[in-house]
Order: sequence, then C-alpha cells, then structure tokens
Amino acid sequence: MKLATAVLHGRQFIGVLNDNDQILDLQRAEKRLFEMETVPSSMIDCIQMGEKFLNHVNQLIQGVKKEEETESYLYNLNEVTLLAPIPRPRKNIFCVGKNYREHALELGTESDIPQYPMLFSKAPTAVIGHDAEIDLHSDVTSELDYEGELAVVIGKNGKRIEKENAGDYIFGFTILNDITARDLQARHKQFLLGKSLDTSCPIGPCIVHKTAFEDINSLTVETYVNGEQRQTGKVSDMIFGIEEIISVISQGTTLEAGDIIATGTPAGVGKGFKPPLYLKEGDVIEISITGIGTLSNTVSKKTKS
Amino acid sequence: MKLATAVLHGRQFIGVLNDNDQILDLQRAEKRLFEMETVPSSMIDCIQMGEKFLNHVNQLIQGVKKEEETESYLYNLNEVTLLAPIPRPRKNIFCVGKNYREHALELGTESDIPQYPMLFSKAPTAVIGHDAEIDLHSDVTSELDYEGELAVVIGKNGKRIEKENAGDYIFGFTILNDITARDLQARHKQFLLGKSLDTSCPIGPCIVHKTAFEDINSLTVETYVNGEQRQTGKVSDMIFGIEEIISVISQGTTLEAGDIIATGTPAGVGKGFKPPLYLKEGDVIEISITGIGTLSNTVSKKTKS
Repeated sequence: MKLATAVLHGRQFIGVLNDNDQILDLQRAEKRLFEMETVPSSMIDCIQMGEKFLNHVNQLIQGVKKEEETESYLYNLNEVTLLAPIPRPRKNIFCVGKNYREHALELGTESDIPQYPMLFSKAPTAVIGHDAEIDLHSDVTSELDYEGELAVVIGKNGKRIEKENAGDYIFGFTILNDITARDLQARHKQFLLGKSLDTSCPIGPCIVHKTAFEDINSLTVETYVNGEQRQTGKVSDMIFGIEEIISVISQGTTLEAGDIIATGTPAGVGKGFKPPLYLKEGDVIEISITGIGTLSNTVSKKTKS
Repeated sequence: MKLATAVLHGRQFIGVLNDNDQILDLQRAEKRLFEMETVPSSMIDCIQMGEKFLNHVNQLIQGVKKEEETESYLYNLNEVTLLAPIPRPRKNIFCVGKNYREHALELGTESDIPQYPMLFSKAPTAVIGHDAEIDLHSDVTSELDYEGELAVVIGKNGKRIEKENAGDYIFGFTILNDITARDLQARHKQFLLGKSLDTSCPIGPCIVHKTAFEDINSLTVETYVNGEQRQTGKVSDMIFGIEEIISVISQGTTLEAGDIIATGTPAGVGKGFKPPLYLKEGDVIEISITGIGTLSNTVSKKTKS
C-alpha cells in the first residue's frame, strides 16, 4: 500500500497510489462508498490508527474495484500536487551519518567509519514534497549537496526496543533527500544547521507500508542528477541496519508514531567527486528505491520567502 | 510578566506568576471578570497572538487587583504542578554548544573554542518541567551531566533576521537544563542522542517576557547541585550573543513562534571536574537566572516508562 498526502483544488487529503498513476482520495471514496468520514486528514493520525486504518483502506480499495464511476474520488496523479507524506513532522527528522562504508571513505579516511551510529537531525521546517523546488540558498552556501536515502517511518510509540522486535515499530518506508550545505556542515561542526536549510528535506513521493516488502535489505537506493547516475547502494550495505538504528535510538529516547529516520546515504555525493559536483540552478535530482518509486526535485535559484 | 503552563486537578492552564508565590489562572480569571474565553490553552498559541495576548493579560492583572474574592482563579503555587512553559515544542530544541570560553576549555583545549556557533538539537520528547524528576538512565549512561542555560523563546516567525532586528523576534526567556549523557555524546560523535534521553530537557519554571529585562547581558546563570555552586556565568560572556545566534540560524532556516534556543552553558559542568562529578540518584540540580527564577529538578533512579 502506497500512501501519500496530496492537494487537489486547495483541499489536502490522504490518498493511495495505484499502478496506473492514479491516486485514490480516501476521504471522498469512503464518503461515497460507505457514507463514512473516518479517515483522518493527517498522515500521522492515520498511522496512529494502526491496523484499523489499514483494514479500512483495504476494504475501500476492494470496494472501489467494483465501482464503475470513480472519477469523483480516483484522480490521475498529474491532476494533484503531492506533498511530503508527512508534511510537517512533529519533531526533527532523525538522520544517520556515514552509514555506508564507501560514503564514509569518500568524505574522509578509515577513521571516519563510525563504530556507533552517528545521529543528527534536520528541522521539520525543511520538509518539502515530490516535485517541489529546492532552494539553492546561494546567499548562505556555495556547496549544496544531495544525499539519497531510505527513510523509515515509525508506526507506534516505543522505548527500549530490542533489535528483534524493531520491525513491529516500523510503519513503512519512504525516500528522503538529505540535502546538505557542506560548508555550513563543516563550519558549524555539529551538522544541524548545514542540514536544516528551508527546502533541504524532500520526502516522498509516498510511504509504502512495510508489508509490501519481502526483504527490505534487498532494496537499492539510486540517485540521478540530470539523468546521470551518481549514487547506488544496497540497503544491505548499511553499516548499522534499520533494526539496530531503531534499537539504539530508543534505548533512552522514546520513538513516536510518525517519527522519520533517514538511514544514511551511499557513496557518490557531490562532495565525493574531484572536483566536487555541487548542486546548481536547474539541476534535477531523482532518487529511486525499488518498490517505493522516485522522488524528484529541481534546484531553483529563486529564494522563496 | 512571568508566564507558566500549569496543571490543577487534572486541568492544564496558562498562568501568570506574581511575587507572592501565586499563579493567576488566565482562563478562569477572564471568564469570571470579563465573561470571555479568549486565552488559548497552549503557550505557543498565546505567543502567536502577540501584543493582543499581552495587552489582554495586563488588563486581566489590573482587573484582578480590584477584586476581593480571587480564590477561584488565583492559586498558591504549591497547589499546582508546573509543566515546562511549552510542554511539547513543535520541533527539537536548538542548542548552542561551547558558547562560553571557559566551558570550551574545561572540556578541551584552545582549539575547541568555536569560530562559528556550534548548533545541535534535543528531541522534544526530552522536555520536562520544574520539579519533575530526571531519569538517571543508568542502563544507557554512566556519565549523566547537567548544563545550566539561558533559553530564548522565539515570538514570531522569521527568516534572514538581521542581528539589529533580532530582538523583535524574541518573545521571552526561560531556564533550560541541557542534561547530557557524556559517554553517548562522545560515542555517537554528533550530539543528538546524548542530548535527547527522555527527561533530559527540564525547562522552566516560567517564560519571562522580554520587556521585564533592561539588559539581558547583565543576567547571571548559576547552577547548584545539592546546594553547592557548580556553575556561574554572565550572559555577557557568551562567545556568540543572543542576537547573533538568532541571525545565524535564521539565514537559511525559518525560525517559528515557540521555538526554543538554549544559548550554551558556562564552565563548571560535572565533566570539567577532576575526577568528574557526574549526576547520581537523589542529586538536586537548581539553576537560577536573575529575573527568571530557579529551575529545580531531582535525579531519580527509577525508570519511568
């Protein structure tokens, strides 16, 4: 199940993407088919409903299949604007640094390969959706860089989660571009500021529920800039696996439904090239992950606000 | 004006502290005096109301002075439970690292004195109020430490704020204890995890509106552990002043009403002593700042959740 947050004619709704480039408007569909209004308008609220939400959506999907007139709730994707699946997370996004060996090496030396997960965060004000523009921020950085990543969406609150049970706390997966101002990252030592520029956290296009994946470790993360492949990495190559990351964070810190954890980026970021290939106006960044889709964003020089 | 978030008989309200150890329940008072219900129950909503909120509260305070029977909305402080003034911030707390020269030196050498503000964050799940217990977290750390700090509360949204105008974006000030697990802080390189353990962010007892201070730089931050003075520092000794911090963060990152920025801690943290004086069960930490008050918390070995 591919869940998205979308906007049509100024109205925000939760939708399910199908294989025909269509999106099912859950609120409109349940009203029409079941005369009900139970689907929350916020993704976090949907996630918190747990199984009940998933069962309801599956019933709706089955119901829609029997209908002949679906145009009032089943739209073509190109009619709607996709927002980030969780447009405004309730806290900073958790991010794991240097979680692929080759990426740690491209930015440093053997000594940069972490012994323990390196955790930092991105401000929720940085979040944008699929197709939204990334501000080049040329007034504050000249080294804006991309980082294609698999992101985990937490499904329920938990603390002291054991690695073996971590899967129970996962709701699903999405794609995240951990846009980074390398100069700010270096200058301010701690990563927060260089990772939190407005528009520097594209997420999407959807959250895919975990049940869609047989083996999350078999997924491949690929990043293209203007059609040229820059990054490719297997989730199985992560130094710290998803279950371990969840366990490590939650030992003393409560994880909550709707929390987002970006699991780190493979080798091939702009800074890793000689000379570095930083982002410039007009660059199109596409990040693809098997079974999730493609998150695409264009870099814009126009400062938005 | 000293604003607090408090609970009485299970009901959460916004209150104003006076010099007689009393708290004025704004919702109840306006209902009784003016037959109005305009004061929001969340501090962030109050802050967002801006001048209108402040004027209304001042009218209420004047109104209450003329009343003889005030017991239905003016309580003794010891009757209520104070929460953090903003019990659940809408993003991680911004924190400035090593912002006092002597503190940078007690943890390292000259080379640790930052050239640019070092910014990291604490998860909002870590926030607790005055008098709430700090979990020793002995299962995940053996080096829990205190850091008494002045915290700034942002009053309105802003981006690319010039130093000269930064004061306009400040709502007020509070006290924050940047509790830190030194071993996690070192082990995970980036500070997030070592700074985000549950209960590791006591804030309070109140937010004092900026108009109460003639010169914020003249304030003194003092930390006592079991009555023994450990830290003392003048705000004027900060390497990066409040206006500069606001300006630096906001150059590319939108600051929002209700955001909290902890401005760094003076010398005298537990790790700075030889041997280090880490926190232990039963320790009482009191942080006092001129004009704000005292934030007091006790370290508990009992793991809460």
